[in-house]
This record gives sequence, C-alpha cells and structure tokens, in this order.
Amino acid sequence: MIDLYTFKTPNGRKISIALEELGLPYKTHAVDITKGEQFKPEFLAINPNNKIPAIVDHAAPGGPLSLFESGAILLYLAEKTGRLMPTDPRGKAEVTQWLMFQMGGLGPMLGQLNHFGHFASTKIPYAIDRFQTEAKRLLGVVDRQLASRDYLATTYSIADIATYPWLKTARDFFPDLFLNTHNITQYLHRVGSRPAVQRGMQVP
Amino acid sequence: MIDLYTFKTPNGRKISIALEELGLPYKTHAVDITKGEQFKPEFLAINPNNKIPAIVDHAAPGGPLSLFESGAILLYLAEKTGRLMPTDPRGKAEVTQWLMFQMGGLGPMLGQLNHFGHFASTKIPYAIDRFQTEAKRLLGVVDRQLASRDYLATTYSIADIATYPWLKTARDFFPDLFLNTHNITQYLHRVGSRPAVQRGMQVP
Ligand SMILES: N[C@@H](CCC(=O)N[C@@H](CS)C(=O)NCC(=O)O)C(=O)O
Ligand SMILES: N[C@@H](CCC(=O)N[C@@H](CS)C(=O)NCC(=O)O)C(=O)O
Repeated sequence: MIDLYTFKTPNGRKISIALEELGLPYKTHAVDITKGEQFKPEFLAINPNNKIPAIVDHAAPGGPLSLFESGAILLYLAEKTGRLMPTDPRGKAEVTQWLMFQMGGLGPMLGQLNHFGHFASTKIPYAIDRFQTEAKRLLGVVDRQLASRDYLATTYSIADIATYPWLKTARDFFPDLFLNTHNITQYLHRVGSRPAVQRGMQVP
Repeated sequence: MIDLYTFKTPNGRKISIALEELGLPYKTHAVDITKGEQFKPEFLAINPNNKIPAIVDHAAPGGPLSLFESGAILLYLAEKTGRLMPTDPRGKAEVTQWLMFQMGGLGPMLGQLNHFGHFASTKIPYAIDRFQTEAKRLLGVVDRQLASRDYLATTYSIADIATYPWLKTARDFFPDLFLNTHNITQYLHRVGSRPAVQRGMQVP
C-alpha cells in the first residue's frame, strides 16, 4: 500500500496518474496547501521542503520508504514496476531527459507565470512578459518534439505523465500561449483520453 | 569518448565534475551562451531547448547518444558506470529525490534571483524579494538536511554534484543568503576539497 500526499495541482496529479496507470493500490491524503497544511510537523517529517506530492511506500524493500519530489517519485514507481519507462540505457535516458525538462523548465516557468500573471498582488509587466516569453519558447520546443511522434519520448512514459497535467492546466489558464501549438492540442487529446489519466486528474 | 557541450555556469559544471569523478575521457566544447552560440543549428540538433549542458556519448550501446538536461546526464553517467549513486531502490530514490530538489527548486529559484537581482534592466523589489525569500527557505532545507550528515543523501552522489556548483556560485554572488547556514559552509569545504570537483569547476 502506498500513502499519497497530494492536492489539486499539476505536480500532485502526476503521481495519481502514474499510480492509476500502474494499478498500484494507494490511499490519498489531501494536504490543503491553501490552508498551510504542508507546514504541519507530520507532513514536514515526510517532506522537509513543505510541498506536495510525497509518498510513503509501505511495501518498499527494507521497510516504509518516504519520498518527495514528483520526478523522483515517478522514477521510483517506474523502476519498482518496470513499466512506464524503457529499461535499456538509451530508452531510459530519453525519458529522463524529457522528465527533467518538465521538472526544471516547463514546471517552474509555468509556475512563475501563474504567480505573476494571476496571484501576485501587483501586476508587474516585466515579470509577466519574462515568464510568458519563456513559457512560449518552452511550449514551442514541446510542440516541435511532438511534430514527428505521439509522445515526448519514443513510447508513452513518465515524461508524458509529468508533462500532461502542466500543459492541460496551462491551456485552461493561458489559452493564448497555445494558439500555434497544434501538436500539443492533439497530444492533450491523445494523453487525456487514457482512462488512467482521467481518473488520476480527479485526485484528490 | 564523450563530447561535452558546456559553459562557465553551475549547470555546465555539474557534468564536468561528474566526468572528472568518474575518470571518463571527454572532450570539452565551450558553447558561449553570452554570444548566442546555443542557437546554432549544430547545437540545436543536440539540444532543441538551446541550453547547455549536453553530451554526445560515442561509446553508448547502439551508437552515439546525445542527451541534454543536466539531471538526465548525471543519472545516465551514474547508471553507465554504477558509481556516484547506490544501485538499490532505496538508496537510488534518496539520491534522485535530492537531485530533483536541485533541478526543480534550488536551480530555477537561484537562477531567477540571479536574473532579477543582477541582470534585469530594472530593479523590481517585489520579484527580488520573492526569489530571495524562496532561496533562503530552500537553503534552510539544505542546511537542516546537512545537520546530521556529510552529504545530501547517505553517501556522496550525483545529488551533491548537482548542488555544489549552485551553492558555491550563490554564496559568491549572494553572501547574505548564507549568514545562518553553517552546515552548508562546512559542506562547501568538504565537497570543494575533492580534486575532481576542483578540476570540474575549471571547465571550460
Ligand atoms: N519540484 C517539486 C515541486 C512541488 C510543488 O511545487 N508543490 C506545490 C504545489 S504544485 C506545493 O506544495 N506548494 C506549497 C508550498 O510551497 O508551500 C515537485 O515536483 O514535487
Ligand atoms: N534544466 C537545464 C537548465 C540548463 C540551463 O539553464 N542552461 C543555461 C546556462 S546555466 C543556458 O544554457 N542558457 C542559455 C539560454 O537559455 O539561451 C539543465 O539542468 O540542464
């Protein structure tokens, strides 16, 4: 059994989608980050970085294993099951490359755009423009990558599971960024029509 | 032989340090990102995301393998050699967790602080304050993690190799962030005294 600590955000949904794809039994614990629940001592013991998602895998070899950072959880689940990522070095490298692109690029930059574009108390044109420009550039990289293939790497993988919830949410919040990304539009249909993705996107 | 495309930045240095630690033969190609060399078609063929670092491993199984994203390159090199990361699932998960923390947290946030604090044409107090606060919080997480151990994970690993160049550079640029991080200070000495780290930090 896996305990999943999560909330209604793209980073959280990565893990519920992966668990649904893998058919692993899990128990969802909603951590309401709008109410500061990520700062409770019980949660900080699992993730000292006070962010969802995090898991505790009670069936890990050597006893319960707690793990934070969505990208690390995805790699752990893929390796635990031998699924959602090739096991040969080339295939694996291709998947981790696009996973890291999401973790270090697309995620943080769309996150900052969301902050400066929606949440910041004052509108700062310089910052909005900076993160909009970078988001558009990154979406262009993804769109070109999808021009000749159905998924980010050769086969459907944890790289897509990491990227889909971010693209989906960004398209809902910032539709203007997606005017020239037709490959992404088709990709969102393709990935979004998977039953496990649909179930994972409803958690919690 | 590995071709390394890099520049004098923390993300680039991660890979030269790892290659030095592993004693793998490599050839350095400096990509001067201050002159826009990352946009040359030859380089975009290796990394369509126009960023260093990237590698081409000519000794990869199945022929030359090109790879971008520093975190993916570090994982690939660790798995290729069976070094700088434990091979058991628990040990590996611990390392990838801190690697992802660097890739998705410390790196992007210190990067934005550097932009708004040093490079931005106009000084925007709101943005400087936002990224300073987040950088301090993240450094606090690292400092507490290092209170009871010498390295981020149980043993010296690619998580340290990813984090050291960022901490080192940030301390040089933003010393005020490090006034209460004594464990990080000791850690910088510990990691920085490794000959391979010293060599890697000189590349290119
Ligand atoms: N790099 C982290 C990012 C996680 C993250 O940003 N989580 C957000 C929600 S999407 C959060 O919990 N924020 C609460 C806080 O920072 O206090 C990951 O991928 O797991
Ligand atoms: N997530 C990437 C980030 C790489 C990165 O930001 N590279 C910078 C230098 S540190 C770069 O090449 N910038 C040039 C540009 O963006 O045009 C990684 O870890 O490899």
